[in-house]
Amino acid sequence: METSEPPLVRRFSVKRVREHEAERVVDTVAAEEPLEIRVSYWFKDAQIADSLALTMRTPGNDQELAAGFLYSEGIIRERAEIVDLRALGSDPSNEIAVELARGVELETWRLARNTFVNSSCGVCGKRSREAIEQQVPEVREDGFRIEAALIKRLPGLLAEQQQGFAKTGGLHAAALIGRDGLVEKVFEDIGRHNALDKLIGWCVLQDRVPLRDGVLFLSSRSSFELVQKTVMAGAPVLATVGGPSSLAIETAREYGVTLIGFVRDERFNVYSGDWRINS
Amino acid sequence: METSEPPLVRRFSVKRVREHEAERVVDTVAAEEPLEIRVSYWFKDAQIADSLALTMRTPGNDQELAAGFLYSEGIIRERAEIVDLRALGSDPSNEIAVELARGVELETWRLARNTFVNSSCGVCGKRSREAIEQQVPEVREDGFRIEAALIKRLPGLLAEQQQGFAKTGGLHAAALIGRDGLVEKVFEDIGRHNALDKLIGWCVLQDRVPLRDGVLFLSSRSSFELVQKTVMAGAPVLATVGGPSSLAIETAREYGVTLIGFVRDERFNVYSGDWRINS
Repeated sequence: METSEPPLVRRFSVKRVREHEAERVVDTVAAEEPLEIRVSYWFKDAQIADSLALTMRTPGNDQELAAGFLYSEGIIRERAEIVDLRALGSDPSNEIAVELARGVELETWRLARNTFVNSSCGVCGKRSREAIEQQVPEVREDGFRIEAALIKRLPGLLAEQQQGFAKTGGLHAAALIGRDGLVEKVFEDIGRHNALDKLIGWCVLQDRVPLRDGVLFLSSRSSFELVQKTVMAGAPVLATVGGPSSLAIETAREYGVTLIGFVRDERFNVYSGDWRINS
Repeated sequence: METSEPPLVRRFSVKRVREHEAERVVDTVAAEEPLEIRVSYWFKDAQIADSLALTMRTPGNDQELAAGFLYSEGIIRERAEIVDLRALGSDPSNEIAVELARGVELETWRLARNTFVNSSCGVCGKRSREAIEQQVPEVREDGFRIEAALIKRLPGLLAEQQQGFAKTGGLHAAALIGRDGLVEKVFEDIGRHNALDKLIGWCVLQDRVPLRDGVLFLSSRSSFELVQKTVMAGAPVLATVGGPSSLAIETAREYGVTLIGFVRDERFNVYSGDWRINS
């Protein structure tokens, strides 16, 4: 499924106004385009093709994004439930088609979902809470531990690999930190939810979920929905450069996720699950 | 419709880890809770009640949020199309009910919308582009002009009025700047889209739309969807502290919106419509 990926950024001619001068310059900004995720799935004995989701995303790694979306939403539970995954139409494409295996219960999900879901979360809300409740793995009395010194190193590690952000300031990054404390994979996107979905989707496509020993590190704030995706991915730790929301903390505490915020300048706050951190 | 509003922030006990010490402190974070927007509307001769949207938002000003959502989505075009607007259930409530007037075409909107919409945008995508195309006011050959000196002052003006952000760093603000260059109204929310919907909804409830002479100023980046809301609100200028996405710029150029980004430190970039700025 390897394809060459489009650039994360675009260039525009803009007028820059400073204190006593104005000039025309070329500015680099984060690329944003819609992606339609289409699915074909089985309902009784019929194969149905339909549009599932439309997301505004930074083009690139659309296969990972689609797989991560399906997984975070609880529609699929493993790689094998994706029969086929391909871009449609012209290249670069803004449409991706996923063929789901027989047995994937999409119709039920759609019915529960017919309320339009809004906000900077999108994959959020009631339906997601139900998904967590139905699907959440066994209680997290795992033996996973992380060193405080590693957490402090995360921003530096991410900065080395976050390419688009340095150019635009407008892209979020989601990184998987492996057991060895190194950045295993990073995805960038204009949306923090998409960045995390790409990362989770990459894990799904590699048959790496649930992520029992992975630390997820995001350049953004954390919200309910990002914690929800973390829970669905089975990851024990979510750390972010920004701060959490109240519902992010409450959800992390409820599901036993270690939630860390304000990871910067050699410090951080632990909002939930501090027993996983060795100082 | 005045009600006392809940606090924008919540307090949690957390573990703070610094270079060589760890301590328990109380941290203040942005409040996040789901809001369900329920509508009753007419279809042929029947009045139908249903759930319309679920958004993760910072509690408070839910009436403005619901009104702004309906307006930005192109479902209503004026205040008079809202017959009633009230919180349901307990106080504080996470449910709001809107009764729409006869003639509001919700069924059509829902049909067009049955694709689930995702991402940090939510109210985005195809349906919104169609809404813009159908409903966008006449071409913006307006006489509206803004002074460069005023734009430079915006961050300072906003900082004076953005209460939640100072406490948490986790809230976005949307401000309406009047003709006199003063901040007329500010709303804060964990989501930038909600903050802008609250502001637009406040204008709707005051019969102030379309906003022919208003400048919208946001503490966030700008995306397609924020430009789309600006267009729907009829506002000539959108300025943001962060940078724009490629699609934000393209949409602003297409619809004649003046799009300004990186308004900070006495400077800014103009990405579209620089003819509205007097230097």
